[in-house]
Amino acid sequence: MEEYILTICCENRRGIVAGVSGEIAAHEGNITEATQFDDRLTGLFFMRVAFELPGTDRSFRTAFEQIAKAFAMNWNIRPAKQPMRVLILVSKFDHCLVDLLYRMRIGELKMQCVGIVSNHPQDVLELTPPDGVPFDHLPVTKDSKAAQEARIKAIVTDRGADLVVLARYMQVLSNDLAAFLSGRCINIHHSFLPGFKGSKPYHQAYERGVKMIGATAHYVTSDLDEGPIIAQDVEQVTHAHTPEDMIQKGRDIERRVLARAVTLHLEGRVMVNGSKTVVFA
Amino acid sequence: MEEYILTICCENRRGIVAGVSGEIAAHEGNITEATQFDDRLTGLFFMRVAFELPGTDRSFRTAFEQIAKAFAMNWNIRPAKQPMRVLILVSKFDHCLVDLLYRMRIGELKMQCVGIVSNHPQDVLELTPPDGVPFDHLPVTKDSKAAQEARIKAIVTDRGADLVVLARYMQVLSNDLAAFLSGRCINIHHSFLPGFKGSKPYHQAYERGVKMIGATAHYVTSDLDEGPIIAQDVEQVTHAHTPEDMIQKGRDIERRVLARAVTLHLEGRVMVNGSKTVVFA
Amino acid sequence: MEEYILTICCENRRGIVAGVSGEIAAHEGNITEATQFDDRLTGLFFMRVAFELPGTDRSFRTAFEQIAKAFAMNWNIRPAKQPMRVLILVSKFDHCLVDLLYRMRIGELKMQCVGIVSNHPQDVLELTPPDGVPFDHLPVTKDSKAAQEARIKAIVTDRGADLVVLARYMQVLSNDLAAFLSGRCINIHHSFLPGFKGSKPYHQAYERGVKMIGATAHYVTSDLDEGPIIAQDVEQVTHAHTPEDMIQKGRDIERRVLARAVTLHLEGRVMVNGSKTVVFA
Amino acid sequence: MEEYILTICCENRRGIVAGVSGEIAAHEGNITEATQFDDRLTGLFFMRVAFELPGTDRSFRTAFEQIAKAFAMNWNIRPAKQPMRVLILVSKFDHCLVDLLYRMRIGELKMQCVGIVSNHPQDVLELTPPDGVPFDHLPVTKDSKAAQEARIKAIVTDRGADLVVLARYMQVLSNDLAAFLSGRCINIHHSFLPGFKGSKPYHQAYERGVKMIGATAHYVTSDLDEGPIIAQDVEQVTHAHTPEDMIQKGRDIERRVLARAVTLHLEGRVMVNGSKTVVFA
Repeated sequence: MEEYILTICCENRRGIVAGVSGEIAAHEGNITEATQFDDRLTGLFFMRVAFELPGTDRSFRTAFEQIAKAFAMNWNIRPAKQPMRVLILVSKFDHCLVDLLYRMRIGELKMQCVGIVSNHPQDVLELTPPDGVPFDHLPVTKDSKAAQEARIKAIVTDRGADLVVLARYMQVLSNDLAAFLSGRCINIHHSFLPGFKGSKPYHQAYERGVKMIGATAHYVTSDLDEGPIIAQDVEQVTHAHTPEDMIQKGRDIERRVLARAVTLHLEGRVMVNGSKTVVFA
Repeated sequence: MEEYILTICCENRRGIVAGVSGEIAAHEGNITEATQFDDRLTGLFFMRVAFELPGTDRSFRTAFEQIAKAFAMNWNIRPAKQPMRVLILVSKFDHCLVDLLYRMRIGELKMQCVGIVSNHPQDVLELTPPDGVPFDHLPVTKDSKAAQEARIKAIVTDRGADLVVLARYMQVLSNDLAAFLSGRCINIHHSFLPGFKGSKPYHQAYERGVKMIGATAHYVTSDLDEGPIIAQDVEQVTHAHTPEDMIQKGRDIERRVLARAVTLHLEGRVMVNGSKTVVFA
Repeated sequence: MEEYILTICCENRRGIVAGVSGEIAAHEGNITEATQFDDRLTGLFFMRVAFELPGTDRSFRTAFEQIAKAFAMNWNIRPAKQPMRVLILVSKFDHCLVDLLYRMRIGELKMQCVGIVSNHPQDVLELTPPDGVPFDHLPVTKDSKAAQEARIKAIVTDRGADLVVLARYMQVLSNDLAAFLSGRCINIHHSFLPGFKGSKPYHQAYERGVKMIGATAHYVTSDLDEGPIIAQDVEQVTHAHTPEDMIQKGRDIERRVLARAVTLHLEGRVMVNGSKTVVFA
Repeated sequence: MEEYILTICCENRRGIVAGVSGEIAAHEGNITEATQFDDRLTGLFFMRVAFELPGTDRSFRTAFEQIAKAFAMNWNIRPAKQPMRVLILVSKFDHCLVDLLYRMRIGELKMQCVGIVSNHPQDVLELTPPDGVPFDHLPVTKDSKAAQEARIKAIVTDRGADLVVLARYMQVLSNDLAAFLSGRCINIHHSFLPGFKGSKPYHQAYERGVKMIGATAHYVTSDLDEGPIIAQDVEQVTHAHTPEDMIQKGRDIERRVLARAVTLHLEGRVMVNGSKTVVFA
C-alpha cells in the first residue's frame, strides 16, 4: 500500500466528502487521516485527505478528475513519502539554517535540501553543508539585485525546488521574485506580527516595553511582512531583558516556529485562503 | 436546517467515511465539520461528524442503522443545539463552580444546570444558585456514604442528568457510583497527573520542588486519579512559591482546565478509548 | 512585627543598597524580599524592598528621608497589609468585573472595592455588588462626557481610591482624566499590543489570520493603547476560530491578564519607567 | 571594572543584606544585580549578588571572610566573565549535545567544553567535535562499569571540569560517581517529573494518555530521577501522537530545558536547597 496526500479547495456544496471518500473506496483505498474546513464567511471548502491505495495513483487520478471538475476544485495529490525539494536562503545568522539541516539529518524533516544560497560567503557561516548540498554565494547590492534574483530563480527552476525557505535571509524580495515563488516560499519574521514589522523588531519590542516577544512564519508575498501566517509563537520577557537578550531568546522561538511551518508545509497541511492560511495540524 | 452531531467508534475498515458521508448526502445533508482518528495500535476508528439536515433526523437514523450494523459501530447522534443536562457536585471550594455557572450564564457553556449538590451547607459557599437550580446539601460520613450516594444516583436519574461534574468535590466516589456514572462524570484533579495523585497535591509539588504545577480533568473511574484524561494544563512556579501560593495559582489552572473539558464533552468532542480519550478539539 | 513595602527610583550610584539595607538594619528591621533593577540604558535604579519592623515606620521614615535626599530618590513606603482602595469601571461585558470581585471575596486580591461605575444601568450586568460597594450608573454621551468624567473624578477623590481599574470600560478617557489618574489607572486591552490597537481587535486579528490572540494590561495614558504595559498573555487560535470564538477565548485571557496586573500593582511590584514598566514579579 | 558573582547561603538573620552590600560599597563596588530568597519554612537565606569592583577581588575576599564567618555562610565568589569548564556525556541521541555545542559556538553559552564522552563510538554521532575538544569513547558493560566510571572521574579531575552535563547519557551513574559529582552534574530526563520516572517515559506517557509531555533538568543524585529540579517545560500532545511523535516533540523540549538549566548554572543562578533548588532567574 502506498500513501497519498490529497488536498482540495472549492466552493462548499453538498456531497463533496461523499464524492471524495466514495472515489477512494471505489479504488480500494483506505483513508488514514482526513480533515476539512468549511469557511462560513467565504463559502470555501478545504480538505486534506491522507489515504492508502493498493497500487499507483494513476487510475485514481483519472477518475478523480471527473469529481474535481464537477465541484470546480483546485486540487493536488502527491505520494506522502516523496520528500519535497527545498532550497534554503540565509544571510549571516545561521541558527535557523543549522536547525533545519539538523532536523533533516535525523529524519525529522522529510525533505531533500537542494541547495543553500547566501548573500554572504560560506566561511561567514562556519558551516559545512551536508554531502551533496551545493552552497551558492550570491552577493547582492542595490544595483545587482535584479541579476542576483535572476540567479535565484534559475537555481529554483534548475533544481526543481518545491519550496524556498528564507531562514533569516535579511533581504527583501522584489515583487517579481515574490510572485514567482508565490505559495512556495516561507519566511521567518522575528516578531509576533502584526506587531513590529520591518527591521530591528527586537529593538522595537524593547522600546515598547512588551512583556512577550515572538516570531512569525508566513508565506512571502510582495507586501512585506503581510503574507499569510502559518505559525507563531511567543515567550515571556521582563524589563530586565535588553534588546540583545531578546535577540538571544528570539533565536529559540524563530527556529522552532520556522521548523514547525516547514514541517506543516512539507506534509501538505497548509492551504492558502486569501490573505490567511488553513492549517490542518 | 437542523444541525446534528454524530459520533462513531468501530474497527477500522475500508469504506467507513464513504458510507457515512454517502448516507448524509443521500439525505440532502451538509457536513459542517468532520474529524476522525485511526488508532493504528488498536485498529479502532473514531469519527465525529457535525452535519445539517433539512428536517428531523428520523429517517436518517433509520437508514444509518444499516451502516452502523454493517460496520459494528458504537454510535450516537444528537441535535447540536440541545443543551446537555448537567449536575454539579462541590465541597467547600467554589472557584470551579462559580466559573462554570458564570460561563453558563453568558452562554459560553451550552448546558442546563439541573442541580448543585454539596456535602457542605449552602451558606458555606456564599453562593446564590441561578434561578431554578436546586441546591442539595447531602452531608456524608463513612457510615452514611452508601445512603448519600444513593441520593446522588436518584438525583441524576430523576433530573435526567447527562453529565455529572465534580467541581472540586473532595469525596472519593465508591466503585459502584463510579461505574454508574461511567463516561458521564468529569473530575478535576489539582495536579498534573500522573504526578501527585491523592490528597494535598500542591503540598506534594512543593515538597518535590517542581517548577510547574498543573491540573487534570478526567473521566471518573473506580480507580482513583486513573481515569481517562480529557484536558491538562500547567503554569510555572518558582522556589518562592509556598504551598498556599500554589493553591492560589492552581485555582486558575483548575477552573480553565475543567471548563475546557466540560466544553469538549458538551460538544460531543470526547470519546473514550480504553484508558485514554480521543479529543476532537 | 509589621511588614512594609518600600519602593525606590533614583539615578544609579554606588551605595544605594548599602544605604537602604543599613537603615533597615539600624531600625532592627528584617528584609523579607528585595528586588532591584539597574537600567543600564537610562542609568536609573529601581528597588522594591519588603521588610518587617518591630514597631511603626515613623522613625524609619524620618531617618530614611536623609538617605532619600542624598540619592535624590522618588520613594514610597506603605504597610504591606493595608489594602488599596480600588474603583472599578465597566461597560456591558462583566467577565473581568465578576472575576475581580470573586478574587477579592476569597481573599486572593488584597483590595477594598470602593465602588463600581458603569455607563450602563446595573441590571444590564446581572450583578449584585458585594455588600457595601456602591454602584454608580454614569451614562455618557459626547455632550455629557466632561460632566460624567467630573463625576468620576469626584468619586475617586471622595472615596480615596488608590487605583482605578478599567475592566472592559469601553470609553476612551479624556486627556484630562488620563492625566488625573496617571500611574493609578489600569486598563485591559483585548489584543496583544502593539498589534490591533483601537476597536474590534478580535475582528482585526481574524482578518489578519494570526495564530495567537492575546490581551494587554497597561497603565492608562492620554495616548490610547500606548500606556506602559504591565502584563500580557496569549493563546493559540486556528483558522477555524471565528471572531466570536476569539471573543470567547479572549475573555479568559483578559480576565487573567487583568487580575495579574492588578495583583502586581496592589503588591507594589510595578514601577513606571518612562513609557515602560519595571515589574518585580 | 571587573564583574563578580557572589552566592551566599546561611541561616536567616537581621543584617545580612546590610553586611554584604556595606562591604561591597566599602570596596567601591557597584551592585549590578541582586536577588535573595528567604525560605520561611527552613529559615535559610539565599542570595546572589553580581557586582563590579575597581580591581581584583583579593582584598574584598579577605574582608568578606569576616562577614561570612559572622553569619556562618556558605559562600562562593567568581569572576562573571570566567567561563566554566564543562564536560558533556552522551549516548546515541545527539540533539542535546549538538544544541549545546551550537549555543557555545555562537557565544550564547559562556562555557568552555573540555571534552565529550560517549559510551558509543564517535561515528555513531555523525559529529565533528569543535576544534580542541577531545572525544573519548568509553564503552560500558555491567562488568566494566566501575573502571569506566573511574576513567570519567579522572577526566573530570584532569581537565578541571566545573560541570558535567548528561546530555541524554543513557547510563545510570553509580552512587559513588553521583556523590563525586554532587552539585555539579546536570541531567536531562525526558519526562515531566515526578511523572514517568525510569525508562521509556514517552511510551509511559502514551500509555497513560496524558495531554502534555515534558522534560526535566535536575542535579544528579544517587537517587535516580529524584535530584533537585532546575528547569522543566511541557508541550501539548493529542490522542493522535504516537510514542514516536512524542519522542520527536520531546527532543525540542529536552534541548531547550537542558540549555536553560545549563545557562542558569553557568551564571551561578542555581543553589541547592535540600532536595530542591533556588533559581535566581
